[in-house]
Amino acid sequence: MNAHAIDTTTAADLDVEDLHPSLRDPALEAMNFLNEVAGRFPDAVSFAAGRPTERFFDLDAVPRHLQRFIDHLRQDKGASEAQAKRLLLQYGRTKGIIHELLAKHLAVDEGMDVDPESIVVTVGCQEAMFLALRALCGHADDVVLAVSPCYVGLTGAARLLDREIWLVDESERGIDLDHLVRQIRAARAAGKRPRALYVTPDFANPSGASLDLADRQALLAIAQEHGILLLEDNPYGLFQAADGPRVPTLKALDTQRRVVYLGSLAKTCFPGVRIGYAVADQRVRGTDATTGLLADELSKIKSMLTVNTSPLAQAIAGGKLLEHGYSLAAANKGEIGVYRDNLRQLLAGLAARFPAGAPGQLTWNTPKGGFFVVVTVPFVADDEALLQSASKHGVLWTPMKHFYDGKGGAHQLRLSLSAVTPEQIEVGLDRFAEFVAQRRRVEAA
Amino acid sequence: MNAHAIDTTTAADLDVEDLHPSLRDPALEAMNFLNEVAGRFPDAVSFAAGRPTERFFDLDAVPRHLQRFIDHLRQDKGASEAQAKRLLLQYGRTKGIIHELLAKHLAVDEGMDVDPESIVVTVGCQEAMFLALRALCGHADDVVLAVSPCYVGLTGAARLLDREIWLVDESERGIDLDHLVRQIRAARAAGKRPRALYVTPDFANPSGASLDLADRQALLAIAQEHGILLLEDNPYGLFQAADGPRVPTLKALDTQRRVVYLGSLAKTCFPGVRIGYAVADQRVRGTDATTGLLADELSKIKSMLTVNTSPLAQAIAGGKLLEHGYSLAAANKGEIGVYRDNLRQLLAGLAARFPAGAPGQLTWNTPKGGFFVVVTVPFVADDEALLQSASKHGVLWTPMKHFYDGKGGAHQLRLSLSAVTPEQIEVGLDRFAEFVAQRRRVEAA
Repeated sequence: MNAHAIDTTTAADLDVEDLHPSLRDPALEAMNFLNEVAGRFPDAVSFAAGRPTERFFDLDAVPRHLQRFIDHLRQDKGASEAQAKRLLLQYGRTKGIIHELLAKHLAVDEGMDVDPESIVVTVGCQEAMFLALRALCGHADDVVLAVSPCYVGLTGAARLLDREIWLVDESERGIDLDHLVRQIRAARAAGKRPRALYVTPDFANPSGASLDLADRQALLAIAQEHGILLLEDNPYGLFQAADGPRVPTLKALDTQRRVVYLGSLAKTCFPGVRIGYAVADQRVRGTDATTGLLADELSKIKSMLTVNTSPLAQAIAGGKLLEHGYSLAAANKGEIGVYRDNLRQLLAGLAARFPAGAPGQLTWNTPKGGFFVVVTVPFVADDEALLQSASKHGVLWTPMKHFYDGKGGAHQLRLSLSAVTPEQIEVGLDRFAEFVAQRRRVEAA
Repeated sequence: MNAHAIDTTTAADLDVEDLHPSLRDPALEAMNFLNEVAGRFPDAVSFAAGRPTERFFDLDAVPRHLQRFIDHLRQDKGASEAQAKRLLLQYGRTKGIIHELLAKHLAVDEGMDVDPESIVVTVGCQEAMFLALRALCGHADDVVLAVSPCYVGLTGAARLLDREIWLVDESERGIDLDHLVRQIRAARAAGKRPRALYVTPDFANPSGASLDLADRQALLAIAQEHGILLLEDNPYGLFQAADGPRVPTLKALDTQRRVVYLGSLAKTCFPGVRIGYAVADQRVRGTDATTGLLADELSKIKSMLTVNTSPLAQAIAGGKLLEHGYSLAAANKGEIGVYRDNLRQLLAGLAARFPAGAPGQLTWNTPKGGFFVVVTVPFVADDEALLQSASKHGVLWTPMKHFYDGKGGAHQLRLSLSAVTPEQIEVGLDRFAEFVAQRRRVEAA
């Protein structure tokens, strides 16, 4: 290749109009803009990043976890050295090699009784989402439903597959169940086939909302009655702010195999391991009338997409699970404390700076855990406002409109609490208050 | 979840007819059958597996490579400990973190001058293939061309995206260039838009065929004249059997940015690291008339598919590159010798057992390197014949018909030489000769 010999002033080789339409999607442009703003103002306090705290990151743990998993293979599984090498370094099982450890984690931490054969280990939860959508939305008229505001990863995966998302309103209780039923009916009336609802019942991204037990049971009943599946995403469930029992996951309550559970180790192990998984125990009748698991169908799709998930990365995650007796709650004691303290401090800091009752005052929700708080402001919280906030006041947040597929959220913004220190929270909220005051002056002028 | 309470005799939850059509593809069924046969006869000598030799697998090298990369970050890149932790354990750059090391490898081993910014690190080469197809085949009428017989990974990725593959005949020289031009014209005449030709110019899977320098230059000229790209897959290029210079890759000869180069470290590092990459230096005009790189468009698609490639896995591969001065040829001296010796022994073993000139004798090609030899036999080499070969004679191979999309190869089979020992080659060929003799008796009867 001799690219330097090319005259760079000549026309481009390709036109984005000729590429896949997802590449011209406004949501994608928005995410690029948000990343670009974050990159341009590295000294700003970031309430934008949804990444986990780095306080407990430990590079020395990586070889230790790897060795722990190798010891497990040798001692618990009776693997020879050649077998251990083959398992970690050679091509291998498409569904993964830590399915039994993940099933034990789900039993210990979530009270779920999962057949390891129904687990597909994926390259992060994003791949699990993509596999589920590709399997279920096989035909052009197949659509997926999602609670709005919606995680952009789901929107992106649907765009990549040229599939529509039908949005369901969020309510103060988490999801407007009446609107869900209306949307299922409307989609059918429009000749579409609604296949599944994507929902994060615990501390959702971006809203922080959670479903209570009664609504979870009602949701399962609606899924059963209307013949759709539930794609339950649960990246934040372990990060409940209060002590005491958690509300069971949809999958833990699922007696009719209506739930495909999407798991992520990004926040509970660390993001760089890139391990997620799907639990898909639905029975699928094949062309030859035999019956298999939906997990095996997802696995076939994965074989055409990424072949398998790095067994080395799986081993590192597996070693961490083994070290903590399969409990990610135990492994994340420190992180759970950080997020709990940060949430409390952020909510208190908002209350101190924006006292209730004043006309045109800010309001915000009070999530019971997770990474996010949503603030409603008396001005338009768009990209231009964010740019002002970053450049003049040194504080970053995320406009909620990007999670509404262009249909709402103009006066809302998301504050993320997961990747800031206590000091940054105070400094960041001071800056945020200055930004709000400045915006009010602009609006009043 | 309480799956055990369900009556398992009731109807299935889903029907494969309702899932994505790729899941009913005969090619996928065939691959499952082949894997199943291999699993049922673990004591058979396998000329079926295309996996690399395990002779040099070394689990102790994994933490060493990781540490080598961390040292590189600290010493060569001036990274603080916090920065190194963030790079390896946190979310990160979608295009990857070893792009500079890969560019140096391509310079050292392939004589290619590649801008690191044009590299996207992927979860194996399979993901790179998928990204390229998704970006380029944005519309329903977009089609990709491929030399037939074709690698099943390409066929699978196209199926997953509901895109047609137009097949181009292989010739004794590697590819029938006249047929390529006829197929481009026929596709256009049929209202299709041919976007790219997928081709493996060095020791292709399954055929073992290679293109000479003249045909590579002719192929680049055809791509330029007819306005298509070339997707050059090069997993085996380093494994040339003879000493001496190699024929340059298409990308090394590409002065018009006609080639998207697809790289794999599965055979040159190890499969379990799951690292591949695309070199996509094509310029793309955006909706706002700015110009970017195709690599950045592939990266956007990747952000909706797997977010990023495990930076830990990248670090392990990067450490291996650093340890060998960026040269995978140097890192694979042992492997190159094994494959060279195995190819020589396999060809000599065939010649000894099936002397030329006898009527109805077997014939085979003589690849100049790589993992595969194709044998033409005087009987139908289908799945039933394979099952006989495995169960009665203890030797596995791959029916070539599975690489022809159902349109040829009935009398051909693929022998893979990469994962067998010298002893297994002799035993396996003896068994293969018995199988052939038995088949001849059946055909004669």
